[in-house]
Amino acid sequence: MEIKIMKNILDRNQDKAEEVRKHLREKKVVMLNIISSPGAGKTTLLERICEVMGTEFRIGVIEGDITTDRDARRLKKFEIPIVVINTEGGCHLDSYSISRVLSMFDLDNLDVIFVENVGNLICPSHFDLGESFKLAVVSTAEGDDKPAKYPMLFREAKAVILNKTDLIPHTNFNITAFVGDLEEINANIPLFQVSCTRGDGLDEFYRWLRKAIPTALSQEDVS
Amino acid sequence: MEIKIMKNILDRNQDKAEEVRKHLREKKVVMLNIISSPGAGKTTLLERICEVMGTEFRIGVIEGDITTDRDARRLKKFEIPIVVINTEGGCHLDSYSISRVLSMFDLDNLDVIFVENVGNLICPSHFDLGESFKLAVVSTAEGDDKPAKYPMLFREAKAVILNKTDLIPHTNFNITAFVGDLEEINANIPLFQVSCTRGDGLDEFYRWLRKAIPTALSQEDVS
Repeated sequence: MEIKIMKNILDRNQDKAEEVRKHLREKKVVMLNIISSPGAGKTTLLERICEVMGTEFRIGVIEGDITTDRDARRLKKFEIPIVVINTEGGCHLDSYSISRVLSMFDLDNLDVIFVENVGNLICPSHFDLGESFKLAVVSTAEGDDKPAKYPMLFREAKAVILNKTDLIPHTNFNITAFVGDLEEINANIPLFQVSCTRGDGLDEFYRWLRKAIPTALSQEDVS
Repeated sequence: MEIKIMKNILDRNQDKAEEVRKHLREKKVVMLNIISSPGAGKTTLLERICEVMGTEFRIGVIEGDITTDRDARRLKKFEIPIVVINTEGGCHLDSYSISRVLSMFDLDNLDVIFVENVGNLICPSHFDLGESFKLAVVSTAEGDDKPAKYPMLFREAKAVILNKTDLIPHTNFNITAFVGDLEEINANIPLFQVSCTRGDGLDEFYRWLRKAIPTALSQEDVS
């Protein structure tokens, strides 16, 4: 019975997500849905992206948080539009909440919206927000077994950012085990090994993102 | 409407949880529900507890995992009964799944069951399993803002284990900020600063646990 209810919720979410996707495509705005456990480094990644790519793309941010606007406050130093969605206990964003806040952006003057989902490696993977694609962020401090234990996100994402590589020498993280499990789940997914606090490895990710954003638009035009 | 459905699910879960709690009380078994983000160190904490306290208490373990039995395999070296619940995508354990697996234990020969919940800082807090109390585990690598951003668990737990203190020198974790936020949410909650891989700080936690387990039983007897 619970499964049936869940399916109804997911169906309605999916319908609204398609509506959001169509609207964003008309406005030529790419939306990225960033998903990770709590504290894997989504906000620090967004800080780095805004610093480096803020002159190349007109960026907007949607911050999903259970409560507080702490992440949004960290991004206030950038001259970009930010909207916070407080889920008030909810464990993920959904397409209805995204649809409601899109009207708060001037979409004609944006190229890309980054959605920082609620910190949760499970539930956000089940809810399409109408995004162009998902990005998975995972921290080395979480251990190398996360792709095997939480496969949904790693199956759905267009790329994986393995953050906090600077901590590897201080942990028992095994990169070979991590990559092996990831390849079993999603053989050709791009993997970026980075340290968002130090900046290590980010250039390669930026290069990929510079192509992935316009490619997402042109693919959506074709479909 | 979703809220109403959620309330029905929670009500039914609560009824079953009370049934589980009553059954465990009759059997004089204490059940602890361990909750954290993915990779905060729940399994390593359980390894340490089994090593040190395995001769003092007759221990059983319920391992909640979305898929795989990786955590359970890490505990197989101990001569204790372990049951794995694979939630198949589900983001938390519930009292129905606990109720079903309790029959697989010889409760007359157990003192305490540790439940390792699914790695998720949000949803498991909403579902009473019939436990005697909850333990919150959080890793320094997740950042010092977790109590403020995810207050539910820190409100509900009987104690907080701050793990991976050995990583603090390599991160921007601020213990004063962490403790300040935690005290605002749950003023008198015991906090144990530990490194489960190194063993630092665990003795104080064991001392607390040695009292908390029998106390939970006697309090339940009174109620």
